[in-house]
Amino acid sequence: VIERLCIIGVGLIGGSLARALKDQHAVAQVVGCGRTVATLERALALGVIDRYALDVAEAVTDADMVVVAVPLGAMEPIFRQMRGGLAPSAALTDVGSAKTSVVEAARQAFGALPSGLVPGHPIAGAETSGVEASVPDLFVGHRVVLTPLPESDAVAVERVRRMWQTTGAQVAEMDYQHHDEVLAATSHVPHVLAYNLLDTLCALDASHEMLRYSAGSFRDFTRIAASDPTMWRDICIGNRAAVMAVLRRYTEGLERLSEAIADGDGEHLMQIFGRAKRTREHYERMMQDQTEQGLGSE
Amino acid sequence: VIERLCIIGVGLIGGSLARALKDQHAVAQVVGCGRTVATLERALALGVIDRYALDVAEAVTDADMVVVAVPLGAMEPIFRQMRGGLAPSAALTDVGSAKTSVVEAARQAFGALPSGLVPGHPIAGAETSGVEASVPDLFVGHRVVLTPLPESDAVAVERVRRMWQTTGAQVAEMDYQHHDEVLAATSHVPHVLAYNLLDTLCALDASHEMLRYSAGSFRDFTRIAASDPTMWRDICIGNRAAVMAVLRRYTEGLERLSEAIADGDGEHLMQIFGRAKRTREHYERMMQDQTEQGLGSE
Repeated sequence: VIERLCIIGVGLIGGSLARALKDQHAVAQVVGCGRTVATLERALALGVIDRYALDVAEAVTDADMVVVAVPLGAMEPIFRQMRGGLAPSAALTDVGSAKTSVVEAARQAFGALPSGLVPGHPIAGAETSGVEASVPDLFVGHRVVLTPLPESDAVAVERVRRMWQTTGAQVAEMDYQHHDEVLAATSHVPHVLAYNLLDTLCALDASHEMLRYSAGSFRDFTRIAASDPTMWRDICIGNRAAVMAVLRRYTEGLERLSEAIADGDGEHLMQIFGRAKRTREHYERMMQDQTEQGLGSE
Repeated sequence: VIERLCIIGVGLIGGSLARALKDQHAVAQVVGCGRTVATLERALALGVIDRYALDVAEAVTDADMVVVAVPLGAMEPIFRQMRGGLAPSAALTDVGSAKTSVVEAARQAFGALPSGLVPGHPIAGAETSGVEASVPDLFVGHRVVLTPLPESDAVAVERVRRMWQTTGAQVAEMDYQHHDEVLAATSHVPHVLAYNLLDTLCALDASHEMLRYSAGSFRDFTRIAASDPTMWRDICIGNRAAVMAVLRRYTEGLERLSEAIADGDGEHLMQIFGRAKRTREHYERMMQDQTEQGLGSE
């Protein structure tokens, strides 16, 4: 059981984590921390947190578990502000979608990495945001990737792991650079591609009319472009090395594809489309197996 | 009422059209035509067609309406083969996803464009294919775009329009080059982008593991990459000018985006992502309005 959980950033993810742990009687007290009193008062009224502090150092004092659930760009100042209050024995984790930048932010803020730090990433989300949208079952069947560091204390890793398992999530461990490469390929770059498609379309003449005649497949393909621009700006910049590496490969592929189309090279197109379709089918089977094993997807 | 409807290519689209018209008692007789006896026998057994011919000229003889529902790459030979049988008074339409190449194929095959020719494109489809998957309500609430030519006879246009309206579709008219630009932007290029993403991923190390940790949004984004490679090869080559034009714009945008990411230019990213998100929201509202008006999407 967690004695005192401090959640910095009580939104969809932070709020859902608190709700899940409370439902499972896995936490005695939840302290919220955030920039705006109104949000924290709402979280309090909803029973998501038990009390709150606006000052980060005060909020983390005496907490045995601290979860930072703020945008990537806000990690470093938050880490800096908690220095005076964080107990050396506290486990410290986060929910950022890119991990290299979180590790860098911690190094900058703390000097040496605290042994309690175990970066993490719940691969779950929703179209909604804010503490009002938080639900206790948000993580059930979802993956949470932990990226323990050489400096991480084994006890802290185990406590963070158990916390997430309590929410119903499937916890995996990965090297943090590898996490960032994986997420760049399957999440960050797809978002960039979808944003770029809609931005390209809106610059074309008759874009309004174009959208009217779009097929339903366009709706699925572009859904992720409705995501929060601030969050994705932070992710793109925070994970820029891995995102750029995948984008470079993607652009090279697109150039080869464009050439094949320009040349009317049907054989080459069949090779590419066929390989892509087989990869998609392999993926779909894997997802279906996971669903049967009780692993959901966002 | 159509006296004799000839459907060349009795698959999902051709079969569903026949079923819809039969259900509405809008056709007296349906003649099927295709390359394989087995498919035509199945269509006959399912009651989708009333008889069939393997020879195209024979199949179209005495038909007052001919619908060509074959892949784009097969249009020209089909047009050539029907020359001996097609009645001058017959309306002739197709269901191809790109129209410039159909018009070119007709010009090549017939010399001068027949006045009965009214190219068309039902914007409907399904993950399935084949006559077994055909259903009478496939087109209900979907758009069908007709692209009449200067050579097209007004009576033929009206008859093709009425045929599609009978299936429950919403019929619109558009210049054929414009149709191809619109579809390149909202359907053809998105397919190319999704195929290219999966082809890029499958070439990366650890691609299998990457897919395992993908979020649900990846599943939506890549669904179209499960489409039939042959069909999309034909569409990319058949609509190559318009596809290349959109791809060029897309690539330019992606280069600007990559630069902004490399430079850590958050302001630029916010502009692009924000504009894209607003376009996506505008589109989503439009789709919802259409749904309320009874217009479905694929």
